[in-house]
Amino acid sequence: MKLPVGFKLAGISAGIKESGKLDLALIVSEYPLNWALVATTNHLKAPCVSRNKGRFSSSKKVRAIVVNSGNANCANGEKGLWDNEDVAGLAAGALGYSTPHDVLTASTGIIGKPLDIKKFRKFLPKAVKALKADTKNFAEAIITTDTHRKQVSVKLRGGGRIVGIAKGSGMIHPNMATMLAFVLTDADIDQDLLRERWPEITNKSFNRITVDGDTSPNDMAFVFANCRKRVDEREFWDGLEHVAMELAQKIVRDGEGASKLITVNVTNARTEEGASNAAKAVAKSPLVKTAVNGSDPNWGRILNAVGYSGAVSDMGNISIKLQSILVYAGKPVDFDAELVSESMQINDVVIDIDLAAGKASSVAWGCDLSADYVKINADYTT
Amino acid sequence: MKLPVGFKLAGISAGIKESGKLDLALIVSEYPLNWALVATTNHLKAPCVSRNKGRFSSSKKVRAIVVNSGNANCANGEKGLWDNEDVAGLAAGALGYSTPHDVLTASTGIIGKPLDIKKFRKFLPKAVKALKADTKNFAEAIITTDTHRKQVSVKLRGGGRIVGIAKGSGMIHPNMATMLAFVLTDADIDQDLLRERWPEITNKSFNRITVDGDTSPNDMAFVFANCRKRVDEREFWDGLEHVAMELAQKIVRDGEGASKLITVNVTNARTEEGASNAAKAVAKSPLVKTAVNGSDPNWGRILNAVGYSGAVSDMGNISIKLQSILVYAGKPVDFDAELVSESMQINDVVIDIDLAAGKASSVAWGCDLSADYVKINADYTT
Repeated sequence: MKLPVGFKLAGISAGIKESGKLDLALIVSEYPLNWALVATTNHLKAPCVSRNKGRFSSSKKVRAIVVNSGNANCANGEKGLWDNEDVAGLAAGALGYSTPHDVLTASTGIIGKPLDIKKFRKFLPKAVKALKADTKNFAEAIITTDTHRKQVSVKLRGGGRIVGIAKGSGMIHPNMATMLAFVLTDADIDQDLLRERWPEITNKSFNRITVDGDTSPNDMAFVFANCRKRVDEREFWDGLEHVAMELAQKIVRDGEGASKLITVNVTNARTEEGASNAAKAVAKSPLVKTAVNGSDPNWGRILNAVGYSGAVSDMGNISIKLQSILVYAGKPVDFDAELVSESMQINDVVIDIDLAAGKASSVAWGCDLSADYVKINADYTT
Repeated sequence: MKLPVGFKLAGISAGIKESGKLDLALIVSEYPLNWALVATTNHLKAPCVSRNKGRFSSSKKVRAIVVNSGNANCANGEKGLWDNEDVAGLAAGALGYSTPHDVLTASTGIIGKPLDIKKFRKFLPKAVKALKADTKNFAEAIITTDTHRKQVSVKLRGGGRIVGIAKGSGMIHPNMATMLAFVLTDADIDQDLLRERWPEITNKSFNRITVDGDTSPNDMAFVFANCRKRVDEREFWDGLEHVAMELAQKIVRDGEGASKLITVNVTNARTEEGASNAAKAVAKSPLVKTAVNGSDPNWGRILNAVGYSGAVSDMGNISIKLQSILVYAGKPVDFDAELVSESMQINDVVIDIDLAAGKASSVAWGCDLSADYVKINADYTT
């Protein structure tokens, strides 16, 4: 995928993953980067998250980020903190920078396994040599249990570009959970503005997805702008939102063991918070997720999840559509269960819930829960 | 199982379950009953829950409860309300009572399927004829996806008894989720006291279990006392708590697809609420549950769930034991992973978490998440 000007990426194998697959990645910009970050809300934070947040609060520009997959370098005590500093320092050295402050870090993978810093010492210079104006190896090197790379590109008028690359795929839950997203652009965007808008955009995209309700300690969504191209601001924000939304959906569609993307639209709620809570509760419910897996038009479980979400006190006016077919309207309605079940046997299942209580609306994206999810997670470390 | 004096139970097949298994049940007391009830917090409430809560607020004694399994009679609109009234009326008629107010109701099963009231009209007289001083058929007739009956008995000095009967097994989550529990006693207990203490006891038992995090619209836990026997109060409350705790653990042990009971002990939390939140977060985490299923000593997922529970801000002092073996102490500790994994290959897995932040403690019980859970739920209605 063609990159915005001034960016080079790399992804190589450094032996961090036992499989030998690509696991060490770099993003480098020829020009200093304006940047914004939204990070996990988990009280357990990997050292890379804490360090990036420190850099973030200084508001200084950065030049590069080094990412490894296969080891989250999380919950490794003091050693984890120093190892993370070392990774930044080694990358800065390999890139010929005078200070590690120009380099951010990100790690994803198993929690609680010490990093083998020797691998970074040996392979970071090789990663620098492998830098090129292409996304493929980078996108491959940041994934863990994902089944494929995730990347989205938008071309702006005047030649600017926005390219997003992300990874999932388990431990995904609203508020940044085991996911990493990197959005790169050559657009000339003010850093303060970028930092103001990026949380709003992540709230509409990455914070609306759920795979298993577990929120991870390593998750971060970045946007980096090297300001080479003048752009129409409105077009830029639309493009950035599009990239974030597409990446979010790609992540959940590739949720561990997932075969279907579930879109939950909640309309006519009393408050936006209520709409959001209801949508997320439905998207997260294991019983809804298993029903979708089995193409079972079980609207009772949907209604039930709306009930415990607390979004609405009068449950008597709610109506529910499954694949655009009305299945509940304050009471059961006659519908062709076989037809609805058949219509659910595709990759996209849409649940529309009308709360008939107000004017607010929201959406959440989830995936079905399959026997494969259990298999993938029952022995991930062993 | 021997019942307290004055109680008779029945469980028969009324054709509500397609399988033809027992599905219509009665509890009847020769003497008026003092009673207490804790019911679901879901905003979606089945008519039986609403009606019982109405009866509850009147503080009047009752005589009987009629229970059906296979159909939750929930989300059936106006018809559901009337059908539920009819069930109470038909049971009262069959029992020769002058008013349906003496009869409570409970339903469990599929949501959103209209009740066939003809079956109740035909079979309630037969259920009355089948009443006897035994628990077996009743315990069998209230279950749905449970694999076996759940009953616990305590004998008090002086001849009094407490007998508890419950059903699970999916949609189980703290705050009364798809579970019914009926505790019967002949002890002479003041109704006000019973109603004061029962919520406290359910908070320590039924509200500490989780199977899948879904909270159902039909769940209720009752205690009925017909006051025939003088008892030592302290012995009675201890016995009641024991019965509730045992039933709660039986429910979660028989969680859908579950092969293991997970006990999560959290100690030295700053607040009891924090301890409770941490214990529940760990017991509920799909990633912890799948790890336990695979006997994988993956303490990182446990630490992660503690992190997002918000129970503790300083994660650096936490220690974790798996099957009494220390696996984390602020940083990874050297432990024999194979040995711990082997020790997890039994029906009881105990996770001890020391937050080192205060003096409060709590416990939660969950079960592992297996591929069978998905199979059971992917096509429950179809």
